[in-house]
Amino acid sequence: MRGTIFSDLLASITERGRAVLGLPQRETQGADGQTSIVDLCERLLSGRGEASGTALARAVLDAYDHLNEAGKKDFFLMLAESFGSDKSALLEAVDRWTQEETTERATELHYRSEPRRQELLRRLNYAAGGTAALVKMRETLLGHLPSHPALRAVDRDFVHLFSSWFNRGFLVLRRIDWTSPAIVLEKIIRYEAVHQILGWDDLRRRLDPPDRRCYAFFHPALLDEPLIFVEIALCHEVPSAIQPLLAHDRTGVPAGKAKTAVFYSISNCQQGLSGVSFGNFLIKQVVEELRRDLPGIKTFATLSPVPGFVRWMRTVAMAGMSAQDRAGVAFLDDPQWWTEPCLVAKTRPPLERLARQYFLDARLPDGRPVDPVARFHLGNGARLERINWIGDISPKGIQESAGLMVNYLYDLDWIEANHEAYANNGEIVASPEVRSPFSPDSPGNTLPGRSSRRGNAPKRISPPVGTRSK
Amino acid sequence: MRGTIFSDLLASITERGRAVLGLPQRETQGADGQTSIVDLCERLLSGRGEASGTALARAVLDAYDHLNEAGKKDFFLMLAESFGSDKSALLEAVDRWTQEETTERATELHYRSEPRRQELLRRLNYAAGGTAALVKMRETLLGHLPSHPALRAVDRDFVHLFSSWFNRGFLVLRRIDWTSPAIVLEKIIRYEAVHQILGWDDLRRRLDPPDRRCYAFFHPALLDEPLIFVEIALCHEVPSAIQPLLAHDRTGVPAGKAKTAVFYSISNCQQGLSGVSFGNFLIKQVVEELRRDLPGIKTFATLSPVPGFVRWMRTVAMAGMSAQDRAGVAFLDDPQWWTEPCLVAKTRPPLERLARQYFLDARLPDGRPVDPVARFHLGNGARLERINWIGDISPKGIQESAGLMVNYLYDLDWIEANHEAYANNGEIVASPEVRSPFSPDSPGNTLPGRSSRRGNAPKRISPPVGTRSK
Amino acid sequence: MRGTIFSDLLASITERGRAVLGLPQRETQGADGQTSIVDLCERLLSGRGEASGTALARAVLDAYDHLNEAGKKDFFLMLAESFGSDKSALLEAVDRWTQEETTERATELHYRSEPRRQELLRRLNYAAGGTAALVKMRETLLGHLPSHPALRAVDRDFVHLFSSWFNRGFLVLRRIDWTSPAIVLEKIIRYEAVHQILGWDDLRRRLDPPDRRCYAFFHPALLDEPLIFVEIALCHEVPSAIQPLLAHDRTGVPAGKAKTAVFYSISNCQQGLSGVSFGNFLIKQVVEELRRDLPGIKTFATLSPVPGFVRWMRTVAMAGMSAQDRAGVAFLDDPQWWTEPCLVAKTRPPLERLARQYFLDARLPDGRPVDPVARFHLGNGARLERINWIGDISPKGIQESAGLMVNYLYDLDWIEANHEAYANNGEIVASPEVRSPFSPDSPGNTLPGRSSRRGNAPKRISPPVGTRSK
Amino acid sequence: MRGTIFSDLLASITERGRAVLGLPQRETQGADGQTSIVDLCERLLSGRGEASGTALARAVLDAYDHLNEAGKKDFFLMLAESFGSDKSALLEAVDRWTQEETTERATELHYRSEPRRQELLRRLNYAAGGTAALVKMRETLLGHLPSHPALRAVDRDFVHLFSSWFNRGFLVLRRIDWTSPAIVLEKIIRYEAVHQILGWDDLRRRLDPPDRRCYAFFHPALLDEPLIFVEIALCHEVPSAIQPLLAHDRTGVPAGKAKTAVFYSISNCQQGLSGVSFGNFLIKQVVEELRRDLPGIKTFATLSPVPGFVRWMRTVAMAGMSAQDRAGVAFLDDPQWWTEPCLVAKTRPPLERLARQYFLDARLPDGRPVDPVARFHLGNGARLERINWIGDISPKGIQESAGLMVNYLYDLDWIEANHEAYANNGEIVASPEVRSPFSPDSPGNTLPGRSSRRGNAPKRISPPVGTRSK
Repeated sequence: MRGTIFSDLLASITERGRAVLGLPQRETQGADGQTSIVDLCERLLSGRGEASGTALARAVLDAYDHLNEAGKKDFFLMLAESFGSDKSALLEAVDRWTQEETTERATELHYRSEPRRQELLRRLNYAAGGTAALVKMRETLLGHLPSHPALRAVDRDFVHLFSSWFNRGFLVLRRIDWTSPAIVLEKIIRYEAVHQILGWDDLRRRLDPPDRRCYAFFHPALLDEPLIFVEIALCHEVPSAIQPLLAHDRTGVPAGKAKTAVFYSISNCQQGLSGVSFGNFLIKQVVEELRRDLPGIKTFATLSPVPGFVRWMRTVAMAGMSAQDRAGVAFLDDPQWWTEPCLVAKTRPPLERLARQYFLDARLPDGRPVDPVARFHLGNGARLERINWIGDISPKGIQESAGLMVNYLYDLDWIEANHEAYANNGEIVASPEVRSPFSPDSPGNTLPGRSSRRGNAPKRISPPVGTRSK
Repeated sequence: MRGTIFSDLLASITERGRAVLGLPQRETQGADGQTSIVDLCERLLSGRGEASGTALARAVLDAYDHLNEAGKKDFFLMLAESFGSDKSALLEAVDRWTQEETTERATELHYRSEPRRQELLRRLNYAAGGTAALVKMRETLLGHLPSHPALRAVDRDFVHLFSSWFNRGFLVLRRIDWTSPAIVLEKIIRYEAVHQILGWDDLRRRLDPPDRRCYAFFHPALLDEPLIFVEIALCHEVPSAIQPLLAHDRTGVPAGKAKTAVFYSISNCQQGLSGVSFGNFLIKQVVEELRRDLPGIKTFATLSPVPGFVRWMRTVAMAGMSAQDRAGVAFLDDPQWWTEPCLVAKTRPPLERLARQYFLDARLPDGRPVDPVARFHLGNGARLERINWIGDISPKGIQESAGLMVNYLYDLDWIEANHEAYANNGEIVASPEVRSPFSPDSPGNTLPGRSSRRGNAPKRISPPVGTRSK
Repeated sequence: MRGTIFSDLLASITERGRAVLGLPQRETQGADGQTSIVDLCERLLSGRGEASGTALARAVLDAYDHLNEAGKKDFFLMLAESFGSDKSALLEAVDRWTQEETTERATELHYRSEPRRQELLRRLNYAAGGTAALVKMRETLLGHLPSHPALRAVDRDFVHLFSSWFNRGFLVLRRIDWTSPAIVLEKIIRYEAVHQILGWDDLRRRLDPPDRRCYAFFHPALLDEPLIFVEIALCHEVPSAIQPLLAHDRTGVPAGKAKTAVFYSISNCQQGLSGVSFGNFLIKQVVEELRRDLPGIKTFATLSPVPGFVRWMRTVAMAGMSAQDRAGVAFLDDPQWWTEPCLVAKTRPPLERLARQYFLDARLPDGRPVDPVARFHLGNGARLERINWIGDISPKGIQESAGLMVNYLYDLDWIEANHEAYANNGEIVASPEVRSPFSPDSPGNTLPGRSSRRGNAPKRISPPVGTRSK
Repeated sequence: MRGTIFSDLLASITERGRAVLGLPQRETQGADGQTSIVDLCERLLSGRGEASGTALARAVLDAYDHLNEAGKKDFFLMLAESFGSDKSALLEAVDRWTQEETTERATELHYRSEPRRQELLRRLNYAAGGTAALVKMRETLLGHLPSHPALRAVDRDFVHLFSSWFNRGFLVLRRIDWTSPAIVLEKIIRYEAVHQILGWDDLRRRLDPPDRRCYAFFHPALLDEPLIFVEIALCHEVPSAIQPLLAHDRTGVPAGKAKTAVFYSISNCQQGLSGVSFGNFLIKQVVEELRRDLPGIKTFATLSPVPGFVRWMRTVAMAGMSAQDRAGVAFLDDPQWWTEPCLVAKTRPPLERLARQYFLDARLPDGRPVDPVARFHLGNGARLERINWIGDISPKGIQESAGLMVNYLYDLDWIEANHEAYANNGEIVASPEVRSPFSPDSPGNTLPGRSSRRGNAPKRISPPVGTRSK
């Protein structure tokens, strides 16, 4: 309810300011709808009175809102062309710096070269709801980027500003549960990107039972809008498959008896904030929260998809595949292969070999792992703990990951070292089991799956061993 | 209480991070206490894991806290020298821009020339309580500026960052009253800069009666810390003197019957945020609040001191003063002059002439008015409404302002025009009465004071007339 | 979330208390599960230490919870038999009063005769969640009342206590909207008793649009549990039918332009509180809320069902019905009669006559109106404003009300007088139109329906005319 | 701030109701101010519309407020005379019960004999702020009780109602600290009854340091009004004197290292609630709070005054005193005796003997201990742990307690047994040391004081030994 009160308040201020400005909403746009936005932007930048600033900011945002898609694209192009750095100021500053290359003049050069967009965006934030409007604006901008490379400079300004405004020091962690406002919960349903939430009853099953948790980061200026959230299951052991974890008829675990917290879904909510990363902070702060609330929890791990695996296998890996593996992989063309024991038996050995290769050896041209989820968790300092055979039998899981799921382990005592090994040397930090040499006569053991789960008991986690990237 | 919970939470995260880093608090400092802060800053910037980021930020802030005053100065100098722009990156960017002066390359130049301090300060904000620590840090920095001009570049980075972080869109207006937390109220007592609050009873007299209001801006990351606040008295008419307004035995006005809201004190709270202006936004938003809550209030004005008047009179004005005026002014040497009718009679005519000159003609070299309070309110679009004779008989009021007080009028319908007249043309927007030609035979009327208050009734406020500055 | 914290807190206290008592949960019950509850109740009443009081209360409630339905019935019978008034104390008090019939001795007699259950129930409330448990307990009790008249005394004690505890001075009005916690909203879905809410999307349509409101009373000891709520539509005019009001594709009314607030559903939530009335207070307080928030709203009315009409018509009224009316009414046997113009034409005249009779003349043996909804609103001081032909075409509406709906008008200036006319004299306060004599040649006008809506415009509401009950 | 909003809201409702009633405030009183209150009370009871109920309740409370002291007394006498039980209803009920002494008829008798005041008071609670007004009303009533015994029946009704309304299940525990609202804190200063708080700085010293705690019970209908609060010091050991505990320059204890929590002051805030006990619940719940927050705390004890000691000694004990003791006690006439070592040496032996006698043997006619503080703590199940010699050298401490202070120990494992021993058998549960036989040749040891504190270490607390009262 606070959100509402607060919004009302800001709204009223702006309305008043508009009256002062003599800016009836309809007249803020010129004949072509475009000219006048430029004018308004210039007026906003020109240093008029601050109350006018609030109303002018609102006027710009309203005018922008009334533009159609093409108009918005033109608005962005205008920002690119007319609201860049002040060229003469820049020339002069470069000149001064060239004459004497001091720290002061370098700083001077920096501030003189600031694109005028930066200050424009900052002032647009004066308006009620400005922050939300700017995040939405960038979402639209992102859609035009591919076809208009000139907009990249504009996007860079957005990212720079958002990185400063959404600094970790300003984010607030809140638990999401069944006492949370519906206006927040409906966004959890909408934004869940990993394992779809099918409605309010499904949502309740993920939030309300004593062995479930959900946490999100919020920003004070985006009330009721989660930025990123993570869903957690409290378990006895690290799970190897998602469907049993979310089953309607599963047996719950009393929160006080759980030994393991499993992060089974992390979703970013604001497309307009892509490139501004929170996930890293979120997982670590949630680990701290859970450690304090539930001291019995000793293991923190994920149950993650392998979204790029099938695509990689069918393209990159195909070339180097043995005829035998090719034959095994071919059975995957049957979308129900995982229900047929004989097909399962035939696909498992090649899939295991390929999964290992995918995680430990396959790299992007820049040397990073091919798998995006792996890049995220390894970059956070987690280690690749276990590859699970037939862990996700949803259509999406079969199609993208050939049913594989992966656990990444967050061991706070090793996070720093893991991160350094990954970040500085490109090592893939993985458990001994994931790394263990392939033993052809016992294929059932090579890929640590359900059958050998006991062998992966968290207590026996050993210091990570890295593989240097080429 | 939320503040406390929230702080605890952040604290615990950092503590954990520290353990991970292997950073016992004592060992964060080298033999000379200085080297290791540099190292920590470099590590913080180097892109280590983000959990480490939080702990590293805390480690830097703790190490800084343990420095003595000289150590802090050295820390700032180090920031100036070693954390400026990356010179080679800058050289390259300048080179590229010189080759082709495109918008893209100008933007590139801007981001390549960013002083490394900027990112360092942003990352220091990862720590629990980072924002508050940075604001305090700048307060200390300001103390070293006069003797170390090289620190100006560092200060500029602070101001740039704070201007972005404390953007009006992130500020929250809250009413301060007798139900506010003591931890906030004690700061109101401490930070009141205009008319000292003598203790909790005095505070209560300013907050609790139905005809008093107090509002402050807060930032979500600085809980329990007002940034700026304004004290307001609801009155029948615009008052001309402060002591009756604050008298213990004054007669209150039922809030619903008040016609006038008087801003009699505005105080900034955070020295570390000086140069980041909020006052303008505050007054205007409070006007909106009051208009909504109390529709009977039609006039919004200040009762302001004239802090530079006596100093100006005794220095700048002395030269051009007539012998007669000089003689009149000489009576002010008696600190009790205002209690003696004969002295009052003799000082009034010259003081009136001088006050008019001070407000309407006296200028700084840059053309702005001499009086700092006048600069603030005229810059906000207010108009100089009335000069009040013997309006403040406190020792400070007599000593600095010769007892004068001034009303500035905030008329929302004229704010924009007033601001433009002042900002663009340097006009002093003043009421006709302040401007009325001096009539030597009726000295009692020339300076609109108590006796002629009725003549200044707010209803008759006419469009402002400007005086062009020379 | 506060609820949770608070509950945790209370729970922990009780747990501790239990340890002190040496009361492991399983052992609180004797072999027959019954004996020991009596013992626990006696111990709770006996004045043991208060910490034990909290734990003893919890122990009784837990033991009760483990009883099956028959066990609970026995528990209530035990309360009836063994926890009534203390007979010897009563005898003595009666004796003393008979000797001297003073006020003091009458008071003495009152307190000496208090059933021991009263204090027992009060002490059960010491336990965490005690209030909720007692409300549920009475719900169960109500189920046993019909077959066990001896339990009426027990029920009377519950009602007496709840009437005191749920005093209007302790109730808190809260608006329910889309920012309310899901745990509250799901109860709105569940408890809606008039026009079923079909799920979360349907709920949102009733809460979220700017022309919808919902308010509920809460009690501080029953967090997240609404006691009663009312759903409101803001309209231009008083509506005559429910389906258009709730249609998915209806055209909304800007809240600021609405002239009428329509209470179209009032639902009690807690069966255990039946007999403790809140509805009266709720409507009147909501009227006040809306008057303040939306001064443009001038008319407050209901759109209400006529739940007893068809039953009354088919039983009571049948006897005195003319052959012609009987024939008309017979067409109602076709459940789709309202879709056939010819059937509509034939049923309307008799239904109109009967509806008038039902509202204006039909009475219960105690002289009150037959219709329960009419009793509620007339008892609140509303007046019967209009009877709407084919106002509710839901199966329930057709089946129970023959499609009729009714508007009751809440005119604050007449509420008091209306109430008195109804309460003291049994008058049915109705608008002139409802009362207007039946004009056989213009049947379409006799029952004020859609066609003549303009004629019922709220402005022309005249002082009510009463009909004395026989 | 919520409080304010809520109050405004209630106020507006009532105002409206008044308009409806046609009750301008001034006209609510008859010529003699009295008649009309009776009328209003009768109307309030008569079952008028409920909105009128709210306004009528307000009208009665307003009319009462305008009465002077004598008028209030008359109002109470009127309540006693005219609003008692309905005599004819009572007669009939007694008659029916006499005919057949069933449970049902006993219950009937109870409800028929309820004084009309009960319902009147319940309905007065409909008004905004009704609960607070009723609590104040009883405070006034208490002042008239001694001279008007007839009012005792009225008082009994208040106590009955308040006991039900302020049931422990409705109380909320809140920590009071430096973030609490000033409006609450000023009441802590005002209501502190044991060791006076000298102003805001002194208050801060009691609330803000990490080794201090303060908790209060609140009732949801009395916002901003603590009912009872307790002040706590966290210590290494159980302290024996109050002045060092509250000294400005004391050395603090890190909260995490404290082993002992000392309740050094418990104050009731609402005189109008006297007789409705909360202290018992408060201490026990606070013990639970502290156990959870600070698991290192193992000992919970009080540092309590002995307020009745000197009076008892100078009156009751004087008769049986030996000449030698009489001589020793005589030295207490010098108010500075405790500063003179020789006087201290002479007074100590007799004071020790007398203190023991006071605590262990001295009884009221009803068999309970003479000391009121002892009655409270022993009744709660605490045990008398240690008598401290020269524990309070404040004027009040010297004058009332001869400087003695006492520790009561709250050991949750023994509370139940202790309570029973005290409540059922009148035993004074005391530590062995307090009970240890007087050894005439080592007087310094007999009274466990500072010198022998180690000997009283909490760990060695043994099962309590009781002394049967005569």
